[in-house]
Amino acid sequence: MTDEATAFVPGHVTGFFTTDPADDPTKAGSRGGGLALADGVTVTVERSDERSVTLDGVDIEIEAVERVLDALRATVAVRAETPLPLGSGFGVSGATALGAALGTNALLERGLSENELVTIAHGAEVQAGTGLGDVVAQARGGVPLRLEPGGPQDNYIDAIPARGRVEYHVIGELSTEAILDGDTAALTRAGEKGLSRVVKEPTTESFLRASRQFAREAGLLTDDVRSVLEDVAAADGDGAMAMLGETVFTVGSGLTDAGYDATITEIHPGGATVLDSSD
Amino acid sequence: MTDEATAFVPGHVTGFFTTDPADDPTKAGSRGGGLALADGVTVTVERSDERSVTLDGVDIEIEAVERVLDALRATVAVRAETPLPLGSGFGVSGATALGAALGTNALLERGLSENELVTIAHGAEVQAGTGLGDVVAQARGGVPLRLEPGGPQDNYIDAIPARGRVEYHVIGELSTEAILDGDTAALTRAGEKGLSRVVKEPTTESFLRASRQFAREAGLLTDDVRSVLEDVAAADGDGAMAMLGETVFTVGSGLTDAGYDATITEIHPGGATVLDSSD
Repeated sequence: MTDEATAFVPGHVTGFFTTDPADDPTKAGSRGGGLALADGVTVTVERSDERSVTLDGVDIEIEAVERVLDALRATVAVRAETPLPLGSGFGVSGATALGAALGTNALLERGLSENELVTIAHGAEVQAGTGLGDVVAQARGGVPLRLEPGGPQDNYIDAIPARGRVEYHVIGELSTEAILDGDTAALTRAGEKGLSRVVKEPTTESFLRASRQFAREAGLLTDDVRSVLEDVAAADGDGAMAMLGETVFTVGSGLTDAGYDATITEIHPGGATVLDSSD
Repeated sequence: MTDEATAFVPGHVTGFFTTDPADDPTKAGSRGGGLALADGVTVTVERSDERSVTLDGVDIEIEAVERVLDALRATVAVRAETPLPLGSGFGVSGATALGAALGTNALLERGLSENELVTIAHGAEVQAGTGLGDVVAQARGGVPLRLEPGGPQDNYIDAIPARGRVEYHVIGELSTEAILDGDTAALTRAGEKGLSRVVKEPTTESFLRASRQFAREAGLLTDDVRSVLEDVAAADGDGAMAMLGETVFTVGSGLTDAGYDATITEIHPGGATVLDSSD
């Protein structure tokens, strides 16, 4: 019997997306495209007499994590560590929920499959209203193109076969819940357009172009993000806005070339995984 | 314009499988379970005036690779490097075919998606008769459970959420083509039984138990493999036979514990990937 189990879940920046509601949260979600990042969330789940969740050492309540622990009937201590900020478009809540699912399953020997655990975390994130597509993208890794919404039993995911350096620069936060609660019809039309462009030309260049166009068409581009993207373009860089955060990311060195003190990471080829479950 | 592109594809040992023929090679294949291995095949594709394929520096003809290069209309030099032996149940031909597809797409900017490249390599391997499920398993990584046959547009894959040390000991070769050309009805019945057992209990322990039972029921267990597995069991280890090779693998240290000079690797969590396509 082990006392703790650890999982790693890559970060995920979304470039464009749709909203696809459904009564069943495991069938609801979004289509879209994004990048899985080597900067992610390491989640350790430990036996405990009472439930607790910390993010970088600070007590926190993340609804999606609570819902995962409810579904797994787990009284455990969840410790999440990440270099990524919350609320800035990196899928930290979804990653913590998925890591809690993988870690709890390993620790308490719940005997669930990978797709079942992804489905639980995806449904929890959708019900919490904090994300629609991060969890399934983080389960796949790489540069996922989510062609159908929902959990792994319902969706269909392809990917751009690419690797490389990624930089990001966080300006501020945006509330996913506030935007998803608003009128999302125009956003979904813009997301569908972006997806069909990138499916025709699955390269990181076309992904970034479609993402910039989506941010404009969906009315989500802030003045500060626009200004940073102009600086990146002036330095011959290639970037876009992370959905949903006031964050700019580039594939390649566009942000540092433009003089920004950006954080450097890379596309993470693999999906979420337990770190060791052999003992 | 780059002069070469490199891809990494994990090795894959199959524990149990079915054969699922179909007229369309991208829909044909197998269901089953296996382990993706950190010991894999690194494939470098280089511009060239004539087509060539080498494996560990030696000229070789691998039909699945030729078919991939035909499909991509590519005149390139393919250099594959691997610590794994050919013909011993590690999916080296499928891995080389998939690596050639990923590398050629990146080098020649063919603009295909990940699933399209996996479909091409899977269909090539099926047509060559050298494998039925390795390519799609290598594209996923981890401990894939192939619940439906065929390429990514048709199949459904789940996985056992596990990591850990793997050891393997190669006794000799088995011809995949010879066995697949024979009567596979009993083999498929045994494979279906194994899969349904592991779906109910998706752990590495149940996977290895189902794999041992499959080898016996499908009549593929050789005397030498049986003898090694008995030694592993006597040392409290947990192993099975790699399909299709005269090879024993263990999750954990069962082979070295039993005194064998085994090769040590581990479950590879990610799938096949280009190594760098950013330049």
